[in-house]
Amino acid sequence: MRNFNDENFLLQTKTAERLYHEHAAKMPIIDYHCHLNPEYIAHNHQFDNLSKIWLEGDHYKWRAMRTNGIDEKYCTGKDTSDWEKFEKWAETVPYTMRNPLYHWTHLELKTAFGVTKLLNLSTAKEIYDECTAKLNTSEYSCRGLMMKYNVETICTTDDPVDSLEYHIKIKNDNFAVKVLPTWRPDKAMAVEVPADFRTYIEKLSAVSGIVISNYADVITALRKRHDFFSEVGCRLSDHGIEEFYAEDYTQREIEAIFNKVYGGAVLTKEEILKFKSAMMIEFAVMDWKKGWTQQFHYGAIRNNNTKMFRQLGPDTGFDSIGEFNTAKVMAKFFDKLALQDKLTKTIIYNLNPCANEVIATMLGNFQDGTIAGKIQFGSGWWFLDQKDGMEKQMNALSLLGLLSRFVGMLTDSRSFLSYPRHEYFRRTLCNLLGDDVEKGLLPASELDFIGKMVEDVCYNNAKKFFNF
Amino acid sequence: MRNFNDENFLLQTKTAERLYHEHAAKMPIIDYHCHLNPEYIAHNHQFDNLSKIWLEGDHYKWRAMRTNGIDEKYCTGKDTSDWEKFEKWAETVPYTMRNPLYHWTHLELKTAFGVTKLLNLSTAKEIYDECTAKLNTSEYSCRGLMMKYNVETICTTDDPVDSLEYHIKIKNDNFAVKVLPTWRPDKAMAVEVPADFRTYIEKLSAVSGIVISNYADVITALRKRHDFFSEVGCRLSDHGIEEFYAEDYTQREIEAIFNKVYGGAVLTKEEILKFKSAMMIEFAVMDWKKGWTQQFHYGAIRNNNTKMFRQLGPDTGFDSIGEFNTAKVMAKFFDKLALQDKLTKTIIYNLNPCANEVIATMLGNFQDGTIAGKIQFGSGWWFLDQKDGMEKQMNALSLLGLLSRFVGMLTDSRSFLSYPRHEYFRRTLCNLLGDDVEKGLLPASELDFIGKMVEDVCYNNAKKFFNF
Amino acid sequence: MRNFNDENFLLQTKTAERLYHEHAAKMPIIDYHCHLNPEYIAHNHQFDNLSKIWLEGDHYKWRAMRTNGIDEKYCTGKDTSDWEKFEKWAETVPYTMRNPLYHWTHLELKTAFGVTKLLNLSTAKEIYDECTAKLNTSEYSCRGLMMKYNVETICTTDDPVDSLEYHIKIKNDNFAVKVLPTWRPDKAMAVEVPADFRTYIEKLSAVSGIVISNYADVITALRKRHDFFSEVGCRLSDHGIEEFYAEDYTQREIEAIFNKVYGGAVLTKEEILKFKSAMMIEFAVMDWKKGWTQQFHYGAIRNNNTKMFRQLGPDTGFDSIGEFNTAKVMAKFFDKLALQDKLTKTIIYNLNPCANEVIATMLGNFQDGTIAGKIQFGSGWWFLDQKDGMEKQMNALSLLGLLSRFVGMLTDSRSFLSYPRHEYFRRTLCNLLGDDVEKGLLPASELDFIGKMVEDVCYNNAKKFFNF
Repeated sequence: MRNFNDENFLLQTKTAERLYHEHAAKMPIIDYHCHLNPEYIAHNHQFDNLSKIWLEGDHYKWRAMRTNGIDEKYCTGKDTSDWEKFEKWAETVPYTMRNPLYHWTHLELKTAFGVTKLLNLSTAKEIYDECTAKLNTSEYSCRGLMMKYNVETICTTDDPVDSLEYHIKIKNDNFAVKVLPTWRPDKAMAVEVPADFRTYIEKLSAVSGIVISNYADVITALRKRHDFFSEVGCRLSDHGIEEFYAEDYTQREIEAIFNKVYGGAVLTKEEILKFKSAMMIEFAVMDWKKGWTQQFHYGAIRNNNTKMFRQLGPDTGFDSIGEFNTAKVMAKFFDKLALQDKLTKTIIYNLNPCANEVIATMLGNFQDGTIAGKIQFGSGWWFLDQKDGMEKQMNALSLLGLLSRFVGMLTDSRSFLSYPRHEYFRRTLCNLLGDDVEKGLLPASELDFIGKMVEDVCYNNAKKFFNF
Repeated sequence: MRNFNDENFLLQTKTAERLYHEHAAKMPIIDYHCHLNPEYIAHNHQFDNLSKIWLEGDHYKWRAMRTNGIDEKYCTGKDTSDWEKFEKWAETVPYTMRNPLYHWTHLELKTAFGVTKLLNLSTAKEIYDECTAKLNTSEYSCRGLMMKYNVETICTTDDPVDSLEYHIKIKNDNFAVKVLPTWRPDKAMAVEVPADFRTYIEKLSAVSGIVISNYADVITALRKRHDFFSEVGCRLSDHGIEEFYAEDYTQREIEAIFNKVYGGAVLTKEEILKFKSAMMIEFAVMDWKKGWTQQFHYGAIRNNNTKMFRQLGPDTGFDSIGEFNTAKVMAKFFDKLALQDKLTKTIIYNLNPCANEVIATMLGNFQDGTIAGKIQFGSGWWFLDQKDGMEKQMNALSLLGLLSRFVGMLTDSRSFLSYPRHEYFRRTLCNLLGDDVEKGLLPASELDFIGKMVEDVCYNNAKKFFNF
Repeated sequence: MRNFNDENFLLQTKTAERLYHEHAAKMPIIDYHCHLNPEYIAHNHQFDNLSKIWLEGDHYKWRAMRTNGIDEKYCTGKDTSDWEKFEKWAETVPYTMRNPLYHWTHLELKTAFGVTKLLNLSTAKEIYDECTAKLNTSEYSCRGLMMKYNVETICTTDDPVDSLEYHIKIKNDNFAVKVLPTWRPDKAMAVEVPADFRTYIEKLSAVSGIVISNYADVITALRKRHDFFSEVGCRLSDHGIEEFYAEDYTQREIEAIFNKVYGGAVLTKEEILKFKSAMMIEFAVMDWKKGWTQQFHYGAIRNNNTKMFRQLGPDTGFDSIGEFNTAKVMAKFFDKLALQDKLTKTIIYNLNPCANEVIATMLGNFQDGTIAGKIQFGSGWWFLDQKDGMEKQMNALSLLGLLSRFVGMLTDSRSFLSYPRHEYFRRTLCNLLGDDVEKGLLPASELDFIGKMVEDVCYNNAKKFFNF
């Protein structure tokens, strides 16, 4: 009988324990994709209480609470106090057993606050008070938390029109953690609603100082912003897409489509597809020129609950896993770039685990021997960012590619308390390898190599791959 | 080395044993979805022999026999004796090792008849005779068997035009087990063959006493039947669909489509889709008004073998798992209802396990905090109603939703010997939880809570959810 | 702690060990589907060195090397020496840990050459020299290797226009191993490029001696070749298809389509589909008439990297797993044949593991009781030919069909060193069954029956099924 959440949590074999404690635990954290608010880091924000740092904006927890029969006012209500919300969350926690929230909750309490009691209704007040008190000390400021977790580099997610002022301020402060921007230009290809697109392009024009009257101007303006992001330290781009887009098109078609939508007319489905296909190629080529890594997060279906969307807006817990047959289009997209010798380092993240094997074999089509693991299969994303999802991603990658060359974990999180997910990932990784060794599936004689492999996947591979 | 099919069958840890024996085993059975023939219960039918209760209509066993090279006459032949069929089944049993039939067979023999010998050609006669003798005692009548298995409530599956006379008789008999009807109106939206649809609508007219000349009349007649079902105790509806349907339509369009098909004309694909979409909304709103639970069983492809369909009709073992990308349409369907605040309690069952994660995340889009687990992921259905399928369903539900709020098992069976499947499910559930506890993935200190969770999933949740 | 790659490799329980050593190990090998070059066997080819037998044409290894950042010249380069290539492969091997290549590599070294050292940069030279020396002895000729591995029968993969001269020579040599051809007529339905199709049909005309001027002539010529293949011992056909094709068509339509494409005109998508659908039926009926087994390998997307395709051609490591919803069409195809009573023994292989359950249930639609396991689910194919893929295939088959009637393993390989994959499969099979027994999921009392089942799946079932 193993203990819950002790120092050997998730480590089911002696070899796993050894791999984790001797190799994984000591590595610094590179969190190369997250959604932290750089303003908070710039101002070294201090959270008022445990509710503020833990529940605000956390749609994972809201979903669990709604499922547990908790009224919406305790999730997103304006007139409900922080404590009332926390209490309802504490009441819900025992009902999340077997959900990753149960593990995350207790791992975060333990590693951030040293709290090892289980959270439930009866412990709620005590834990709330203890953590809130700590949150009001400098050790628990945003920067303090990043130092506590041995974070070396993070990459936030930013729009091309963003001023990046906070990234610049942080850099000028000589903060020990590198806080770099990521280029996420989704809105520059969101041509579904002409008025929104026009508004965006006008912002782009203003921030870039480029007068935009045609498609070429858009590209010029975006390139200027791309250069600016690069100066501020950006090394990755990111794209949130439902499916891949790789329609054939001519430059003239795209120019005409731009004029049409910029003029306020609604595009046909085919025009939208062509425009996105063209922009994806443009972005990919920009990244290739700079030696950046491009990331694709695909397969979510979003804002499925119109009533709640109207009430709360996006990213509030009403998204889910989609079903798409996109393998051929994905291959075509990368093929177009490979054919021009302009395919840069790439990470593909899927939301539907059914695509694990599709992606793990897709990588091999475009590995070109120039750099180890050039095309990467991203770690379990969003709903899949849990033990089972991580294991399935690592197993598929292992069986159909090279686990040893994997750039590893990222939090994708909006919370300063999410760094223990790296620990969670590392324990899971060590557990898989330890199990293999003890079953004779990997040779015990090679434990040094396997230990180095753990260190690589936890830190070294990412460090080298992204040129941090 | 554990024993096969003993008291700790499927329970691989001490904690699993404890959870099962102390918490799961004692709970009564609520079988909220099955296909038992209510007439058999009304008349308290007694089966002539083991073949009659076990092989008649059991397409699972027929499929296994055909795969084993057994001639069709031993499955469905008119001129083959019950014993001859049984002998061929007994011959097949050892060849079903690793198939759920092997477990079900021996669990049913043990729990119903106290037979612990393995069934094969050499034990066939002895077992046949022993069980047949018992079947001729009152303890083994339909009602006797339900009492033996501690069944509290069952819900059969019934057409809106059904008289429900047997349900009424059973109720009037004050039989200790509640036998409730379920509203399954598939035929009311089966507009593919105009003549069949017309026949059905005429039956509906006759049984409801509503003269039907247009679409509004159909709805009136169905509502009347819906009210009648409610009076007889119905608390659930059920829909067998290939995919979800959520086309946009106008009331006028639907009226015209009804007139067209009722007039005998073949509808276009689009018309069929619109009609089904409209009916699905009508049914959903009826259920919402009554506080019923709606069930959707989707994803089967049926009657794939035309030759055998002509010979034997439907439900004879020629259906299989389909491949559909239906996530977006499913979301749209529920969104339409949620937008009107008319989404009732819902259970979604998939046949392709690839949709497990799609559904487990779809739930969260529509949980509204009014009742715990309002939108449910149905237990492993049909081909997935086995250890692996149950585990995958429970794991997906756990990881992406709340297992603790799950309404649990149902047999979906046509057989009075299928109640041990609840035991099978409970053992599987306890085994999962016990394993988690012993691996330190759940805290051993919380065994009382986990025990209560087992009781909830086995019985309490369903009792409360369906208002039985 | 178990040892890597020792006599109990992959066998995690005592029962698994017993099943493997007492039942599986002794069975001869029937490799009913491979891509060995019959010319090599006819001439009893001797390989110059370990690189030649191991790396030439092995796109699995090339993919791993490219992923490891190895330059293309060490994979397929003309100016790189065999030793240089081998050295780069040896350097890559440790980085393949958890990939099947790591297991295959060491299992092949051990069983073929008695080498138990791990391959890496520091052991590369020693291992290369030792194996190369052995390869130059007669024991390691192509025929020698087949004898060493106790191979009884193999089936190569051959085009209808192939002369089969090498098969005939091998037979006339009275070589102890049966080397049979397999009918693979993919090119006869590849009508996408009219000129290529015309060239192929002209070859068919020449080799068959049938003047071809219309569709009927094509069928006549193909039948003649089919007869010839049968005379040389062919017992299986094989089809490499993206998806299944089952369009409705008339004979006249197909004749017109043939005339159009033969005349050099490009066909529409629909015409291509109809033509393929017609040819699939023609081939299926030919096989049925002869009592052959038809095989379908579906679901690959090929030649995804145009740049590398231009440089290296097909089958060089740029294929991957596709996404297709083909269940209904697959059912329709088999239904057409079953309806005419012309469905022959069949094996279906999928590349996307998401289709495992689809196929495992599809089988049951068409099992007709004439022969045990008439419709088979093929063992883990290509990317899925590894421990996890095999286990998932066997689990799906077990749960939804009858494992006991499975015809088992095939290498699908181009290499004379791939026979240990049968050992790998057998160990995996025994491990699954041993685990079940020790967990009480199968009765330990039935170990004799289970042992026989192992022997059947490893050898007896195939022997009987294919009439070898």
